[in-house]
Amino acid sequence: MCLEDIIRVIKGRRCVRSFREGEIPNEYIHKILEAGIWAPSGGNIQPWEFIVVRNRDMIDKIKLVSPGLFGDPSVIIVVCINLEKAKRGGRIGESMAIIDVSMAAQNIMLVAYALGIGSCPIVSFSKTAVKELLDIPKYVEPILLITLGYTDKWPNPPARRPLEEVVHYEKY
Amino acid sequence: MCLEDIIRVIKGRRCVRSFREGEIPNEYIHKILEAGIWAPSGGNIQPWEFIVVRNRDMIDKIKLVSPGLFGDPSVIIVVCINLEKAKRGGRIGESMAIIDVSMAAQNIMLVAYALGIGSCPIVSFSKTAVKELLDIPKYVEPILLITLGYTDKWPNPPARRPLEEVVHYEKY
Repeated sequence: MCLEDIIRVIKGRRCVRSFREGEIPNEYIHKILEAGIWAPSGGNIQPWEFIVVRNRDMIDKIKLVSPGLFGDPSVIIVVCINLEKAKRGGRIGESMAIIDVSMAAQNIMLVAYALGIGSCPIVSFSKTAVKELLDIPKYVEPILLITLGYTDKWPNPPARRPLEEVVHYEKY
Repeated sequence: MCLEDIIRVIKGRRCVRSFREGEIPNEYIHKILEAGIWAPSGGNIQPWEFIVVRNRDMIDKIKLVSPGLFGDPSVIIVVCINLEKAKRGGRIGESMAIIDVSMAAQNIMLVAYALGIGSCPIVSFSKTAVKELLDIPKYVEPILLITLGYTDKWPNPPARRPLEEVVHYEKY
């Protein structure tokens, strides 16, 4: 196994908010998305839908409605849940789907990093506006945006709450 | 970079629902949780709290209130959000926190797999009962359980919705 490698990727990944120009090859986008669909999903429903936006004008339009989006990424992946599929999970279907796509997003960002590509997950954006801009149907809900791009500015890691603070043994 | 390794781990991880006996060393639990806290989090709030349950009686009690939990894991990690911390994220704080801990959970399961340990994320459990069993305070909410254990039965990968179906270019 390749434990040290995976830990290096998990710890090395940063939220990148300053990108340089540089096109991301299609085969990289493919590998990145392929990682997404190998996340687990509740009841194996796989409620995810991904929209890959490369068009510069559209990226600028999305930026205008996304206060949480910084920098000029080469690509935005809009990570959505398909509500028609999610409802197969019953009462907890939608909340389960949000967990599923978040796990897929983490896979996406890890593989992006392993490819030398910076990323950042963004939840602060207007869902209504993004739905309209990208012709997203009523039964599909965007949950987060992931920016992708090359960078010369890998940020320093923000301090972590230490394990002793966040881990509780046997009881809280 | 170690692209092939990380892809191998992401694709190899399975949801394991049948465990054999075998204690997981403390240092492994430590590495697994360490991966969790290196997930990104909205506003760097790090809203997570993790409860590590190894006690056999307590695991059995949790199983009784968790219809989604299969097999006899050696460890259950209860992944929680700290609502006091999450509310710093304002109106979207809680939903952001759920995304954050889901990403942390994915890191946890990937490192577990790289260590040869099976895992499964579970959302079908009684939050009320788990809170009471583990003395979880009012301001902390369990979001998912992760079972951990050794296994002789790695399941086959369930079929994936193909990329052509789930990926949309430029517009939905």
